[in-house]
Amino acid sequence: MTPEAFVKRGAEILAAQPFSRLLGVEIGAVAPGRVELRLAMKPELLQQHGFAHGGVLSYLADNALTFAGGTALASDALTSEYKINYLRPAVGELLIARAEAVNAGRTQAVCRCDVFAVRDGVEKLCAVAQGTIVKLTQD
Amino acid sequence: MTPEAFVKRGAEILAAQPFSRLLGVEIGAVAPGRVELRLAMKPELLQQHGFAHGGVLSYLADNALTFAGGTALASDALTSEYKINYLRPAVGELLIARAEAVNAGRTQAVCRCDVFAVRDGVEKLCAVAQGTIVKLTQD
Amino acid sequence: MTPEAFVKRGAEILAAQPFSRLLGVEIGAVAPGRVELRLAMKPELLQQHGFAHGGVLSYLADNALTFAGGTALASDALTSEYKINYLRPAVGELLIARAEAVNAGRTQAVCRCDVFAVRDGVEKLCAVAQGTIVKLTQD
Amino acid sequence: MTPEAFVKRGAEILAAQPFSRLLGVEIGAVAPGRVELRLAMKPELLQQHGFAHGGVLSYLADNALTFAGGTALASDALTSEYKINYLRPAVGELLIARAEAVNAGRTQAVCRCDVFAVRDGVEKLCAVAQGTIVKLTQD
Repeated sequence: MTPEAFVKRGAEILAAQPFSRLLGVEIGAVAPGRVELRLAMKPELLQQHGFAHGGVLSYLADNALTFAGGTALASDALTSEYKINYLRPAVGELLIARAEAVNAGRTQAVCRCDVFAVRDGVEKLCAVAQGTIVKLTQD
Repeated sequence: MTPEAFVKRGAEILAAQPFSRLLGVEIGAVAPGRVELRLAMKPELLQQHGFAHGGVLSYLADNALTFAGGTALASDALTSEYKINYLRPAVGELLIARAEAVNAGRTQAVCRCDVFAVRDGVEKLCAVAQGTIVKLTQD
Repeated sequence: MTPEAFVKRGAEILAAQPFSRLLGVEIGAVAPGRVELRLAMKPELLQQHGFAHGGVLSYLADNALTFAGGTALASDALTSEYKINYLRPAVGELLIARAEAVNAGRTQAVCRCDVFAVRDGVEKLCAVAQGTIVKLTQD
Repeated sequence: MTPEAFVKRGAEILAAQPFSRLLGVEIGAVAPGRVELRLAMKPELLQQHGFAHGGVLSYLADNALTFAGGTALASDALTSEYKINYLRPAVGELLIARAEAVNAGRTQAVCRCDVFAVRDGVEKLCAVAQGTIVKLTQD
C-alpha cells in the first residue's frame, strides 16, 4: 500500500466509527507499523479543570495503537490490551498521538504510543502507552 | 460522608466534566473505595462493527478507577496510570463500570475495575482494568 | 483433571523450570482457572532494605498468572503480558500468589493475581497483577 | 554525578541486593534517566523450554526501570508499578535491559525499558516494559 492508500484506509475506518466522528479525530500520517492521529481540542473534550479528559487521551492512544498494529499486521485489527501513564495535564489547541509497532508476529503486534498536547505550536508529551494489537480473526 | 453525600459529590464532578456530559455517564452507587458508573448505550458511542468503542470502555474504567480511589483517599484525585484488557465486544443497552480500591496509602490508591455490558438485562464482563489513583496535590 | 492431577502437573512444570527450582516455589492448590503458588522467604530473595525483591514478587505473579490461564485454557500456556502494582514491602516467612482467570477464550485467558506476604501467620496483600495468558501454539 | 560515579553507585546498590547477586546482574552504563543492565545467561535462569524464564526478564526490566527513574529523580527510588510485554523467547549468552525516563516530576518518573537477548553477538528485542518509579520517601 502507498502512504496515500494507508491514509485513505485509515480515514475510512475513522469515518465508520461513530465515536471517532463524535470526537473529531483525524489521520495525520500512516506507514506500515506507524501512525499519527490528530484531534483538535474542543470544549466538550475537557474535564472539570479545563484539561483534556483522561478518557480522551486514552481513546486517542488506544486508537493509535490499533492503527499502528493493524498496519504492521497488514490486517484489520483491534486492541487486546494496553496501559497508559498520564504525565501532565493536556492543554492546548491540538492533541497528537504517535504510535509505532515495536514487534509484529503472525497474529499480534506490540505497539507503543506517545500522546502530545500542542499549545501555541509547541508539543508537550502528556501520556505514554503500550499495548497488544491482535488480528480481527483471532480469539 | 453518607452514601447519599458520596453520590451527590460524584454527580457534581461528572456534571463539571464536559466530556462526561457528552457521553452521558451517571453515578450508580458510591461508597468509600467503591463506585459504580452507568452509561446508556447510544449510537454515537459505537465503533464500525456496532460495538461500544474501546475508547468508551477505557473512559468508563478510567473514571470509575478515579472515583474509587478518590473515595478511598477521601480526596480529589486523578488517575496516574492504568491498564485495561478487553474481553469481548460490548453490546447491549447499558454499560456498567464497578471499581474498588484494593489498597490505599497516604497519597495513592491502587484500584481494580470491571466493565460490564448489559443486554436484555443480562450483564457480561467486557473489560477489566487496574490502576493507580493519586491525590490531586501530588507531583 | 482431578485437583490432585492438576497439582501434580503443576509441580512437574515447576520442577522442569531451573529458575523456579532456584527460587524454591511450590504449588499450593490448583483448579481450573485458579492457582496458588507458595514461596518460602530466604535471604537470597531480598533486596537492600530486607524486603522481598520486587523481581521475586513479579516472578511469582507472572508464574501464577500462567498457571491460572493454562488451567483455564486446558493447555500449556505462557504469559504474553502483565502489569503489576506493588502495594507495600513484602516481609515475613512466606509469599503466596493467588491467581484466577476472569475470562478464557479459545486461545487466550485474562487473569488476575494477588500476592501476599505472610508474617507470623498473618497475610498482607503486597502486590496485584493482571495479564494475558496465551496457548503455547499461538503466535 | 559523573558517569563513573553513577556506575559505581549502581553497582553498590546491586551488590547490596541479595537477589541481584543471586542472578548475577551487572551495571552496563548509567546516565541521568538512562541505564543499561547486563545479565549473563546461566542454566539456572531458564524455564522448561530452554529460554530465559519470564521472571528473569521481568526482574531485569523492573530493576532497569528503577535505576532509570532513580537517576532521573536524583534519589533512591523504587518501582511503583510496571507492565511488560514478552515478544519472543530469550535465547543466547547475555540479556541486556536498557531503560530511560520519558518524564520526571518532583516525586515520580515514568520510564520505558527494552530487554534484549544477545546470541552470537546479535541483539534481539525480547520484551518491552513501561512503569512508574517513585522517590523512596513517598507513600
